[in-house]
Amino acid sequence: MIGFHIMTLFPDMVLNGLQTSIIGRGIERGYVEVEAVNIRDYAFNKHHKVDDYPYGGGAGMLMQAEPIYQCYQAILQRIREKGQDKPVRCIYLTPQGTVFRQEMARSLAKEEELILLCGHYEGVDERVLEEIVTDHISIGDYVLTGGELAAMVVVDAVARLVPGVLNNDASGETESFQENLLEYPQYSRPEVWHDKKVPEILLSGHHENVEKWRYEQSLIRTRERRPDLLVKNEQNN
Amino acid sequence: MIGFHIMTLFPDMVLNGLQTSIIGRGIERGYVEVEAVNIRDYAFNKHHKVDDYPYGGGAGMLMQAEPIYQCYQAILQRIREKGQDKPVRCIYLTPQGTVFRQEMARSLAKEEELILLCGHYEGVDERVLEEIVTDHISIGDYVLTGGELAAMVVVDAVARLVPGVLNNDASGETESFQENLLEYPQYSRPEVWHDKKVPEILLSGHHENVEKWRYEQSLIRTRERRPDLLVKNEQNN
Repeated sequence: MIGFHIMTLFPDMVLNGLQTSIIGRGIERGYVEVEAVNIRDYAFNKHHKVDDYPYGGGAGMLMQAEPIYQCYQAILQRIREKGQDKPVRCIYLTPQGTVFRQEMARSLAKEEELILLCGHYEGVDERVLEEIVTDHISIGDYVLTGGELAAMVVVDAVARLVPGVLNNDASGETESFQENLLEYPQYSRPEVWHDKKVPEILLSGHHENVEKWRYEQSLIRTRERRPDLLVKNEQNN
Repeated sequence: MIGFHIMTLFPDMVLNGLQTSIIGRGIERGYVEVEAVNIRDYAFNKHHKVDDYPYGGGAGMLMQAEPIYQCYQAILQRIREKGQDKPVRCIYLTPQGTVFRQEMARSLAKEEELILLCGHYEGVDERVLEEIVTDHISIGDYVLTGGELAAMVVVDAVARLVPGVLNNDASGETESFQENLLEYPQYSRPEVWHDKKVPEILLSGHHENVEKWRYEQSLIRTRERRPDLLVKNEQNN
């Protein structure tokens, strides 16, 4: 059981994007809890304003410290009221973070509660990040309109590793990815499609040969498409 | 104007996740068109079945070639009927792809039509990928429950670079990211928050000094958090 608490200006986007599919099933079955909390509800000023100009000038608006801080405190208090007294990690989704990888998903899947902060506009006042954030995470070297999709990606990658969420525990993590190899090509019915035949060996029923072929294909594919992963393997060994 | 055509088993998830926020505004204003097409509608068999067991055994189910192929052809025909006769790139979202980066977002933003294929279950029959896919793209080295979130990430990163989508063209791409540097810390009102003061220099009104400070902060932050980006810069120079 893991609880995700997402601080965002677009709670509907986050919830709609996660309630479908496999994570939705994990929620229904009680293995995963997701709440999206609207930061604007914690802007205790006249117009529920959450942003202002950056000091020093520059394009766009910044999210201010106080509404985020109040939102965080409210979430933390609810977690504490459930009797959960361990430190709770608070993840800020930002291109300025550590790059998210499968190892990190595995580590986060061991937590019982996670708070995620989605930035918007041109960023967030640095001081509130210093005060509440434990992990700066980037899902990749590209710029998104906000942190919502990044938070959804992290929730999805972590939730599917929580026992019970996937029907089939074996498919939670393909072995090939664990070894830093890309997956081999796969084929399903029919045997011949558009004049392309399924490789003979997959029809042989010879389990050992199939495994050997798949491993070789993984190696070939990784060498062709992601030689950097093979280098990482050598460095780890 | 750019048109995204997303082949998926979960069209609602994709549309709900993109209609909010800035991309939603781009759609309203007619700079971006997004359609999510349900692959299941192109499974012309008894139970609209889209998956089957993998040849050679293994956990989980594979998406079969034919429904995806039919879905693709239908989309392509609609694009051709609009009078668009250029080759259309078809992106398959997969951990087995080239890693998505901002340069790739820039290149894709020059296209007029893009088709995206979201895999699910344990993968997709390799033969249909060989037949229709031009680009294999991975948004990062982690495993997701399906390609939907990855497709949304690519659409978001690309759409925001299309002229007119963002209010402020200057904020479409921060200069720092272009140079492979992380962004500097930012501050907004109030001047003092939780005993933390905004750095004096940002209040000075001295534009040149502010720029210099920000550049230095970007360098420091990149060195601390992502030294690999600095190495990339040196290799490019």
